[in-house]
Amino acid sequence: MPFYAVGHKTPDTDAIVAAIALADLKNQLGEDVIPVRQGDVTPETQFVLDRFNQPTPELKTSVAGESVYIVDHSDLAQSPDDLAEATVLGIVDHHKLGDITTSAPLECWIRPVGCSCTIITEMYHYHGLSIPKDIAGIMLCAILSDTVIFKSPTCTELDKKVVQELADIAGVDDAQALGIEMFKVKSAVEGTPARDLVLRDFKDFSMSGNKVGVGQLEAIDNSVFTAIKAELEAELVKLKAEGERHTMILVLTDIMKEGSEVIVVSNDETLAERAFGANFTDGKAWLDGVLSRKKQIIPPLEKALS
Amino acid sequence: MPFYAVGHKTPDTDAIVAAIALADLKNQLGEDVIPVRQGDVTPETQFVLDRFNQPTPELKTSVAGESVYIVDHSDLAQSPDDLAEATVLGIVDHHKLGDITTSAPLECWIRPVGCSCTIITEMYHYHGLSIPKDIAGIMLCAILSDTVIFKSPTCTELDKKVVQELADIAGVDDAQALGIEMFKVKSAVEGTPARDLVLRDFKDFSMSGNKVGVGQLEAIDNSVFTAIKAELEAELVKLKAEGERHTMILVLTDIMKEGSEVIVVSNDETLAERAFGANFTDGKAWLDGVLSRKKQIIPPLEKALS
Repeated sequence: MPFYAVGHKTPDTDAIVAAIALADLKNQLGEDVIPVRQGDVTPETQFVLDRFNQPTPELKTSVAGESVYIVDHSDLAQSPDDLAEATVLGIVDHHKLGDITTSAPLECWIRPVGCSCTIITEMYHYHGLSIPKDIAGIMLCAILSDTVIFKSPTCTELDKKVVQELADIAGVDDAQALGIEMFKVKSAVEGTPARDLVLRDFKDFSMSGNKVGVGQLEAIDNSVFTAIKAELEAELVKLKAEGERHTMILVLTDIMKEGSEVIVVSNDETLAERAFGANFTDGKAWLDGVLSRKKQIIPPLEKALS
Repeated sequence: MPFYAVGHKTPDTDAIVAAIALADLKNQLGEDVIPVRQGDVTPETQFVLDRFNQPTPELKTSVAGESVYIVDHSDLAQSPDDLAEATVLGIVDHHKLGDITTSAPLECWIRPVGCSCTIITEMYHYHGLSIPKDIAGIMLCAILSDTVIFKSPTCTELDKKVVQELADIAGVDDAQALGIEMFKVKSAVEGTPARDLVLRDFKDFSMSGNKVGVGQLEAIDNSVFTAIKAELEAELVKLKAEGERHTMILVLTDIMKEGSEVIVVSNDETLAERAFGANFTDGKAWLDGVLSRKKQIIPPLEKALS
């Protein structure tokens, strides 16, 4: 019976690519591991997979009775709903430590770096294995995506070093140019329903018992969102009610300006001002230098709600 | 302000030594990390520290406001009571994944191997650092202790390989002989109150909401426990009531016979038989081949209580 490698719900590029790369690594070690996904791939991820000739992993949302490797998260809210009925063999992640627990010893590679694929590169090194050329290419893109081409405060020296190594293996001469090409695909919003945009890179968090949904959209220039902002806000209000959420937040990140506009709809009217120390007008504020949901949005929200 | 490295409550040799070794490694990396302990050291641990001229870490049971590395556990029940008020910088462990969570990214080195010190040896390698001679000596002993001189089913090829490396660094010609000398110290029960013996290597677990306490005593020959078994049983009954526990278990491991006598006092009369598939008489059964609390006692108990 094969094992599975699976990233979080509403998968971003790292969640998809880390599953593919970890499966390759484990397959090289003699295990039979299949990469799977819990949701649709984004246009950015599709661009990355196409660019390096990788098939899209199969959709698999139930893992009862299976043995799984978890990548790019360690929260039950983001893992398959029936994870409690599966055996977790290991976790590869770069986020805060979540509430997944196990009843047997396992393998956890968790590091405070910019991307799960940076850690998986270290795992290839540890085991003395070679990274296949096209796998190196998609891993390179995952790191450029998660670190916002090195601009995110989550980006470390190790991420930069690994990107150079992966670019050499993948035969990519200009990694930055590839990153900008990829973010242009990510920036495209025309023709996409507002709801799909809010949910494109969306995660629910449990904060002191409150369900808080946080979506993020990154653009080379976030003026692309101006024309549809009212629609996005309307979807936040709807999704808050439908999901019985305490708070819904959308982070509109401008990669070139290196900051984000944050839109907040919450039961707690002063939450956003307490969390981010900024003046919010109609639930909106520009937060200069804020690029990372994981490092700059979630921790202050958790603190403000605790 | 220094950071701290701390093992679990009721520390065994690995909990003490892993804190010392991780602190040394982090100090070599330029961090100021102090090893501490949450409880008294056992006679075995004292023997190990004395043998390699290491001071006993300071007692520290409160970590509010501090930044800490957690070693040899990942369960809140085993960590300092006010851990929620501390920053967890990292976890080094070889047990099942517990319920510690964090609000920021961290470093987790968790592997299904026999001892935390095996993982810390890998961390020295990863960082290209040398292990000081006496630190190698205590790490060697921690691995021999946790793997019951390689006899535990938790022992892996990596543990054996690391023991050879550490013995070479520490200048120990016969690691097995050192292990037997150490277990003879551990086997000594004369003059020690029964309660102290039950609590010597004792951990509380939360299993489906039930508090289950499990102690383990290892002896080269567990006939040393025969004369005091009634006293040990009486202490189990008392500790169960005092701690409002659902179940108290004492595992008396015979290293040479490679098995354990298990004594169970529980609210659930059929728990032990369901968990271990053996016939219990007066709450006692011999479990052949059972040496590991982590791998052979805790998982079947959790399953039987779920």
